[in-house]
Amino acid sequence: MTRPLKSFIDIAENSDFPIQNLPYGIFSETKDGVRRAGTAIGEWVLDLAALEAKGYLSIQDGENFFAQSTLNKFIESGKANWSKIRAELQDLLSADNAELRDNQALRDQIFFKQADVTLHLPVHIPGYTDFYSSKEHATNVGCMFRDPKNALLQNWSELPVGYNGRASSVIVSGTDVVRPSGQIKLPNAERPQFSACRKLDFELETGFIVGKSNNLGEPIAIENAWDHIFGMVLFNDWSARDLQQWEYVPLGPFNAKTFASSISPWIVTLEALEPFKTSSPVQEPQPLAYLREDNSSNSYDIHLSVEIQADGAEQADVISETNFKYMYWSMAQQLTHHTIAGCNMQVGDLMGSGTISGPTPNSYGSLLEITWNATKPLTLSNGEERSFIQDGDTLIMKGFCEKDGLRIGFGEVSGKVLPALNFNFAD
Amino acid sequence: MTRPLKSFIDIAENSDFPIQNLPYGIFSETKDGVRRAGTAIGEWVLDLAALEAKGYLSIQDGENFFAQSTLNKFIESGKANWSKIRAELQDLLSADNAELRDNQALRDQIFFKQADVTLHLPVHIPGYTDFYSSKEHATNVGCMFRDPKNALLQNWSELPVGYNGRASSVIVSGTDVVRPSGQIKLPNAERPQFSACRKLDFELETGFIVGKSNNLGEPIAIENAWDHIFGMVLFNDWSARDLQQWEYVPLGPFNAKTFASSISPWIVTLEALEPFKTSSPVQEPQPLAYLREDNSSNSYDIHLSVEIQADGAEQADVISETNFKYMYWSMAQQLTHHTIAGCNMQVGDLMGSGTISGPTPNSYGSLLEITWNATKPLTLSNGEERSFIQDGDTLIMKGFCEKDGLRIGFGEVSGKVLPALNFNFAD
Repeated sequence: MTRPLKSFIDIAENSDFPIQNLPYGIFSETKDGVRRAGTAIGEWVLDLAALEAKGYLSIQDGENFFAQSTLNKFIESGKANWSKIRAELQDLLSADNAELRDNQALRDQIFFKQADVTLHLPVHIPGYTDFYSSKEHATNVGCMFRDPKNALLQNWSELPVGYNGRASSVIVSGTDVVRPSGQIKLPNAERPQFSACRKLDFELETGFIVGKSNNLGEPIAIENAWDHIFGMVLFNDWSARDLQQWEYVPLGPFNAKTFASSISPWIVTLEALEPFKTSSPVQEPQPLAYLREDNSSNSYDIHLSVEIQADGAEQADVISETNFKYMYWSMAQQLTHHTIAGCNMQVGDLMGSGTISGPTPNSYGSLLEITWNATKPLTLSNGEERSFIQDGDTLIMKGFCEKDGLRIGFGEVSGKVLPALNFNFAD
Repeated sequence: MTRPLKSFIDIAENSDFPIQNLPYGIFSETKDGVRRAGTAIGEWVLDLAALEAKGYLSIQDGENFFAQSTLNKFIESGKANWSKIRAELQDLLSADNAELRDNQALRDQIFFKQADVTLHLPVHIPGYTDFYSSKEHATNVGCMFRDPKNALLQNWSELPVGYNGRASSVIVSGTDVVRPSGQIKLPNAERPQFSACRKLDFELETGFIVGKSNNLGEPIAIENAWDHIFGMVLFNDWSARDLQQWEYVPLGPFNAKTFASSISPWIVTLEALEPFKTSSPVQEPQPLAYLREDNSSNSYDIHLSVEIQADGAEQADVISETNFKYMYWSMAQQLTHHTIAGCNMQVGDLMGSGTISGPTPNSYGSLLEITWNATKPLTLSNGEERSFIQDGDTLIMKGFCEKDGLRIGFGEVSGKVLPALNFNFAD
């Protein structure tokens, strides 16, 4: 491309949203206003439904991709169309294209300050699956709850372990989270008791959005898997550790995870992430053939961080910094494994990476690991201690790629924890 | 009601579908024809979309509950409306109402032989959860794979253990099932291998369809739970035992279950099942308060059976007969537990009971249990042996209630197993 990728929109140097990014989201001007698709550019949202309606995008009459309350219809239109629209948007936003640049009246109608709009769940999520693909995380958990000498179960190294999550409780960044209640069993108790969760945790994850379905009984081959991925989001897989420990055998996590899972509002496309491709860890043993993939560029170099801000605290404290590139199993391997027995994926499905922990304690992706199950509490800058999340705490996760002066960011996923409900039971 | 509940439609004595049943389903006249709602009466389907369009039901203009490809909109209309429509249908179909009875031209338009139509998935299923609520089943599995002396894990007796299933691969009765492939690990092998499933099994279950949603963070109290249930179906939770054994620790079943789960096409309402209410087993220990419920009439007396028919065999063999009333945890307890931490249920959600095993080997709800993990193979009437399901086998599950000359049935859920795909991998 000879055209320099510079926008006529003024974009701050550390912005997550230069013209090279153009993530997709769903916004409304007021909380209950009409939802439609937008893209983020600098501190603005560009109204894609308006662009579409006014004929600035080469979309056939009646297609109506963007005047929708979710992105699913656009995503279903396919990879070739994603690329075409992206190129058209970059062209419309470029500094040397006068079409929007010099039409202030139009610009006043189609650009909205991000700070002024409400961002919604960007996709309808028919299915949500969570993987467990960070070796460091699985090892840490195995050390704490199983045998430190055999922390990793054998199947972990042979396949991307995952489980079906609950799609209905996936919420968008900014949505408050009520502390869950349920059964917990204290170490010396004979029986469980009903209680508000006492070990509320976050899990730092990313998620990818499935962009292309497959039919039931027709697995996605590893060499085609990347074509089935639309883009990525940040993902906080809130976890009630005490509920989880009591309920999870033998069928896996359930109420410990189904009360809320938060995603960032902007879906960053794989095309935008392309310059940040990197290798993933060498896999030993070599996976079975159906999962085998060249590891030299099947991951992304994405800086990730977690901040916690206590209620009323002046500032948030960064409590973890890690990177997506530590993930052992690639997104393509996850998707292929998910379908190998015949499972059909649907457009909009959310696939969580699993907690992303790096090799050192300051890169762990959960409080469970950071405080080593409350044996090493954190001290926040306001002097308070944290082993797990307290009521009023806000958790903020951020992510960005940066190289050669180009920064492609995800924005953030945040959520504040509210006190548990009051239950009035006889006992 | 003084009107005797007898229809002008001729209904065979052993029919599952008398005027007291009136289950809801989705049908089309041809395979690709227009889908709409119907109810089963004797050997007929009554076209509810046509009845609605012609003004025979007290539905407000524009409501359009039945000219839909799923029942979700009707179900969302609420319990009072379910009752009202049911009463109107019983009235329209009754022997002493001339309105349809004596209008042969109309009857020719709105009644279709069940054998001539295609039945479809009756609801859009936003979420599917499977429980594990038969004590006999959980004990049998615990004996086989864990410790016979401590077959039941402690949490099993304290809460209805469940896990999130995969909603996308729920299919309607009559849909073929391709034998899944994936990773299995043979007992003495160092590593897993890629293989077609060698231990393909069924699980005899029922499922209930959620009829009323709750908001995220607002649990459904046990005393309200029954009002959130629309009706029940038969459910075959196909299971790949060898995939399951290798993959399921620590996060539960995944590919072993996500390749297909079959439901019967007719949803039998709780109102139709009302005469067959019965007690469920005494729960010891007494559940925590949030799960506590009078056990005297929180179950249903539903006879259930499983038949297997080998490819080309002249007849199907009944291999299990059991009853829904053996279930330890009630549907209300399952639903309340599912939401206690805040999870939001959606209209159309499918909740599987878990395998329903009775106390004796001829009442076990899976081949795993019937053949005790292939140590006691079955002999079919054609002389063939079965430890697990073979290619070409058709599995048929049936269910009905019967008392005082009234029979309310579910019809059946059936599925034929096709050979695994041919994969061509280098190793």
